[in-house]
Amino acid sequence: MEAARVDFARLRYFIAQAFEAVGMPPDDARTVAALMAQADLQGSDGHGVIRLAPYIRRIRAGGVNLHPDIRVVAEKPAMALIDGNNGMGHLVMKRAAELAVAKARDCGVAWVGARWSNHAGPASLYARMALEHDMIGVYFAVGNANHLPPWGGLEMLLSTNPIAVAIPAGEEPPVVLDMATTVAAYGKVKAKAARGEAMPEGWMIDREGRPLTDPRRAAEGFLLPIGGYKGYGLALVVGLLAGTLNGAAMGREVIDFNQDFSSATNTGQAILAIDPRAFGGLAEFKAAVDKLVRSLRAAERMPGVERIWYPGEQSAERIAAHRHDGIPIAGAVMGTLDRVAEELDITPLRTN
Amino acid sequence: MEAARVDFARLRYFIAQAFEAVGMPPDDARTVAALMAQADLQGSDGHGVIRLAPYIRRIRAGGVNLHPDIRVVAEKPAMALIDGNNGMGHLVMKRAAELAVAKARDCGVAWVGARWSNHAGPASLYARMALEHDMIGVYFAVGNANHLPPWGGLEMLLSTNPIAVAIPAGEEPPVVLDMATTVAAYGKVKAKAARGEAMPEGWMIDREGRPLTDPRRAAEGFLLPIGGYKGYGLALVVGLLAGTLNGAAMGREVIDFNQDFSSATNTGQAILAIDPRAFGGLAEFKAAVDKLVRSLRAAERMPGVERIWYPGEQSAERIAAHRHDGIPIAGAVMGTLDRVAEELDITPLRTN
Repeated sequence: MEAARVDFARLRYFIAQAFEAVGMPPDDARTVAALMAQADLQGSDGHGVIRLAPYIRRIRAGGVNLHPDIRVVAEKPAMALIDGNNGMGHLVMKRAAELAVAKARDCGVAWVGARWSNHAGPASLYARMALEHDMIGVYFAVGNANHLPPWGGLEMLLSTNPIAVAIPAGEEPPVVLDMATTVAAYGKVKAKAARGEAMPEGWMIDREGRPLTDPRRAAEGFLLPIGGYKGYGLALVVGLLAGTLNGAAMGREVIDFNQDFSSATNTGQAILAIDPRAFGGLAEFKAAVDKLVRSLRAAERMPGVERIWYPGEQSAERIAAHRHDGIPIAGAVMGTLDRVAEELDITPLRTN
Repeated sequence: MEAARVDFARLRYFIAQAFEAVGMPPDDARTVAALMAQADLQGSDGHGVIRLAPYIRRIRAGGVNLHPDIRVVAEKPAMALIDGNNGMGHLVMKRAAELAVAKARDCGVAWVGARWSNHAGPASLYARMALEHDMIGVYFAVGNANHLPPWGGLEMLLSTNPIAVAIPAGEEPPVVLDMATTVAAYGKVKAKAARGEAMPEGWMIDREGRPLTDPRRAAEGFLLPIGGYKGYGLALVVGLLAGTLNGAAMGREVIDFNQDFSSATNTGQAILAIDPRAFGGLAEFKAAVDKLVRSLRAAERMPGVERIWYPGEQSAERIAAHRHDGIPIAGAVMGTLDRVAEELDITPLRTN
C-alpha cells in the first residue's frame, strides 16, 4: 500500500473524534489530537497517530484517567511540581510547559516537573513550546518501558530516557535536538522487524554481550546506550531528574506500556524554560545562533557528504513539506486507523 | 619513575605557593589550589595539578587577569550572568555555583551562566558544590579547544563540551556523572601517545572518515562524538547553553588554549542548581535515590562482570583511598612540578 497524504487539520479532526468517542472531553480531545498531529507533521511519526490505537486500548482498559484533576502540588517562584492525576501525558506536559514559560518570564529560568503523567509523544513537542515565546526549552522524560540494564548488567532497569533541547534562532530554523540516550530508539527495532531487515551492529547486544542483529530476537537482548557507559550514565541522571525527583516511577517501578494497559504508569517528565532576554538582548542572541549554525553549514565537507545539517533543520524542512503536500500516512498505519474508525463508529481518516 | 604520594593539604599548599609566586592574590591562590587538589583527590588527574604548568605559562603570557573584577552583569530571581573579567575559571565558577545555590534556596531552581571565564578544571567540581547543600547540580561548559567538526564536516568547530550532573543520595555515594560529549576526551589521546599505544577504533577518524588509531597522527583527524550525530547535537546544544547564551566564545571564536597562551579565551560555562526540598521531602528523595542505585548494583550481571557501578561511585572510592594513602603523582608530572618549583624559587612538592 502506498502512503496516503492527509492535511494537518484533517488528521487532528480524526484523532479528536476518536478520543471523543471513547469519552474524552472535547476540549482535551482537541488538545491531544493537535499535539499528536503535530508529531506527524514534524516527522516524529513513531510518536504521532501511530499511537492512537494503543492510547485507545489503554483508555478502554481504564489505564488513563479521562477526567484528571491536573494540579500543582509544590511550588516556588522558579519551579513547580505537577500531579497529572493519571491524565493523558500531552495534557499534563502542555500545562507544565506553559507554566515553565510563565515563570521563566518573571524569574529568567524555571523548571516544572510532573508525576502521575503518561506518555506524551515526542520530547521535542514540549521543548518547542518554549520557542513560541522566544525561549529555550529543555525536556527530560522517563521512557515507558525499560530496555537497558545498568552497564555490565542483565536486568533491564532503565528506559531510553530522552532529552530534547529547543533553541530559538533568528532567520534560520531553530536548533531542536530530540534524542533517546540509546543508539537506537526501540521503535526503530520494531520497524526493522516489520520490514524483515537486520539491525546494524551497535544497536543491541544479547545476554552474553554479543552483538544482536536479528530484530525478531530483540526480546532476548538490550538496547545499547550511546557512548557505552556514558549513555548509561545519561539515561540514569535523566531518569533521576524526570522521575525520582518528582516522585514518579523509575527503575523497577516503570510499567511496560506495551504489555500492561491498565496500570497507571506514574510517568515522570520535566521541562526547563530559559528566557534569553534575561541574559541580554534577544535579537543579539538570535543573531549569534544564526551565525553559529551558518558556520556549521558552511564547513568544509567530508568526501561524499552533500550537506551538513544541524539538529532541527531537517524537521523544519519536513514541517514545510508536510504543510504543502500533506502528512504521509503509511498503508499499514491507515489500515489500523480504518479498524479504529470502524470500532468507534466514526468517519474513517481516509474519507473524512 | 614510580608515582609519589602526597596528601591533599601538601598538594594544595604547593599549588597555592606557585600561584602566589606569579602574583596571584593569596586568597585566590588558595581557592584555586584547593579546587585543583580536589580534582586530583577525586581522580580527575587530567584536570588537577597537571594543569599547573600551562596555567602558569598563561598567567606569565598575560592571558589571565590576576586581579579580575568578577561581577554579575544580568540578574533575575532565578538566574544571573557573571562576567569573569578573564579571571581564573575556578574563581568564576565557584562564585557562580555559590550564587546558583543561594538563588535555588529561594526559587527552587536557579541557573548562573558565565562569560569571560577560563578553564576551570573538571566539570564535576562545580556540580558537586551543590551536593554540600543537599542540592542537585548540573554543569555545562564550552571546552577550550575545538576537536570535532559538525557531523559530516572537516572543519573543527566544536569542542568536547562536557556535562556534569551531581545528585545527592542518602547512605550511598552521590550520583556524579562527568562526561565529555565525545567518545574519548582529548587528554586520553595524549596519554595514549605518551605511552606509545594505539587507540581503539571509534575514538577518532581521519579526514576521509576512516578510523584513526595512531595517536601520533591525532592532529590529522577528529574526535568522534558519542552516538555519532547524537553526540554532535549534544556538543552543539551544550555549547549554545554554556557559550552563546552567555555571550561567550563558541565555534570559530574558541581559542585553542594549547596553542595560544596570551589571548583571553572568553570561556563560557553554566551551572543549574535544583533544590529537592522544593519538590517534597529531602529525606524521601535521598531514600529514593539510595533505593534506585542499590537496585542497579544488585542487578544480575553479565558473564565476567564482577561488579556493577553507577557514576560517582568509583570517584567516591578514590576520594576515600586518596585521603587515606595520599594522592598519587606520576613521575613525569612530579618532574614537571620540580621544574616549576625551581623556576619560581619555591619549595618543591616532593620535599615540602
